[in-house]
Amino acid sequence: MTTQELVAQIHKKQSFLCIGLDTDLEKIPAFLLEEEDSIFEFNKAIIDATHDLCVAYKPNIAFYEAYGVQGWSALRKTIKYLNKNYPEIFTIADAKRGDIGNTSTRYAKAFFEDLNFDSITIAPYMGKDSVEPFLQFKDKHTILLALTSNEGAFDFQTKKIDNKELYKEVLSVSTTYKGSENLMYVVGATKAEYLKEIREIVPNSFLLVPGVGAQGGSLVDVCEYGMTKDIGLLINSSRGIIYASDQEDFADTAREKAKELQEAMKKELDKLN
Amino acid sequence: MTTQELVAQIHKKQSFLCIGLDTDLEKIPAFLLEEEDSIFEFNKAIIDATHDLCVAYKPNIAFYEAYGVQGWSALRKTIKYLNKNYPEIFTIADAKRGDIGNTSTRYAKAFFEDLNFDSITIAPYMGKDSVEPFLQFKDKHTILLALTSNEGAFDFQTKKIDNKELYKEVLSVSTTYKGSENLMYVVGATKAEYLKEIREIVPNSFLLVPGVGAQGGSLVDVCEYGMTKDIGLLINSSRGIIYASDQEDFADTAREKAKELQEAMKKELDKLN
Repeated sequence: MTTQELVAQIHKKQSFLCIGLDTDLEKIPAFLLEEEDSIFEFNKAIIDATHDLCVAYKPNIAFYEAYGVQGWSALRKTIKYLNKNYPEIFTIADAKRGDIGNTSTRYAKAFFEDLNFDSITIAPYMGKDSVEPFLQFKDKHTILLALTSNEGAFDFQTKKIDNKELYKEVLSVSTTYKGSENLMYVVGATKAEYLKEIREIVPNSFLLVPGVGAQGGSLVDVCEYGMTKDIGLLINSSRGIIYASDQEDFADTAREKAKELQEAMKKELDKLN
Repeated sequence: MTTQELVAQIHKKQSFLCIGLDTDLEKIPAFLLEEEDSIFEFNKAIIDATHDLCVAYKPNIAFYEAYGVQGWSALRKTIKYLNKNYPEIFTIADAKRGDIGNTSTRYAKAFFEDLNFDSITIAPYMGKDSVEPFLQFKDKHTILLALTSNEGAFDFQTKKIDNKELYKEVLSVSTTYKGSENLMYVVGATKAEYLKEIREIVPNSFLLVPGVGAQGGSLVDVCEYGMTKDIGLLINSSRGIIYASDQEDFADTAREKAKELQEAMKKELDKLN
């Protein structure tokens, strides 16, 4: 998917919501456990109930890997279902991978070609030759971890290199990578005020923002500091939507929660006009 | 496996060799492609031919993930084969994972419990709460990326925070994590002279050293600067051993290459006496 197609979808749906499919057999409604593929059936119900309110889905790969071959099969069915029934949706493999060149190429092929995701999250620690292999795929996007929304972000990401925090160094250096036009960035919303400085380094890139809601970030602040003329934001919510109810009405309840966020996003989009 | 058991195995085999199972269908002998599970059959042949010369095997998970459900099945068969037939061998899931707390717990369960690996490689970028979940498993080991052997290591790892390179900050900070006694570290051998300073920060930890051979590191230098009284080193070789021949004799040739490294390691171990 091209960035232009993503932007067009945002305008059409009046939403820049990404829903995280962190599907956990211990948290999904108990009656679904009787299904042959409970993980996929849960995802399918969530997707069918919310697809017109969001522009992206983001399965966190750890949740699928935890169930081994069965989990991978459910992941494959989920991405195939999305690509077949809702091809306009932007798909994110939240994998946080990163390895040396030939190995990164393996991961890129697995997620971009075999599973046909539009994008993947990548950790920056191993540098240039661990990231560039992902950037060589046309109309595929690499979402680099810059500033994450967890407590451990302060261990290294915010420490200063030559008076500049590591996450800013990651942003700066990555813009010099070959294929950097295919980069997006993870920026945790618990530090919305950081977005102003981040926009000085990457004025136009899309930012994937976790942590709005459950982790304390404010949608209004994030939009004030982070939104560009082409939106440039994907706001992720996972548990707040998909686990809003663990009863028979879970999909309807997920839709209600997604609708609340979409309506708040519409207000922010209206401010652009 | 306890660290003491690993050290005992090193003394018994006079080897601290780790063999990387980066199994690639484009590189394994063509006649194996006729097998139903070519990846597993290749691994099995390599393991049977080399198990008495090495103390660890390290499948790089990317190579398995690239083949989807089929790859995960081959990985599962490989680790089960190792645990059943050669339970003394230390097993490393080279996964380079790292995510927020509850997600890291998922990965830990997948690799430590479901697949029963002895250890896993982890990226440090997300900090404390992304690493600590792995450290809570008894007799399981977490191998943190500190200084990698690829070109991109210079992008961030060697940049200075308060006059100290980032990789040294990773070493220092990680020693304060809960369960840090279960930490080992990846340290690329292309910078053997760095090992002296690394040993000042982590005097006793095991270091997993890639890059000896193909990537230019010298075994003698690595041992001079990095070896402890309890050895404290695992030297990895992947392609130099497993792809030394692509003919019918591939397993025998792998054994010859492993034997060369084991004999060089014996000389280094003799220096301890």
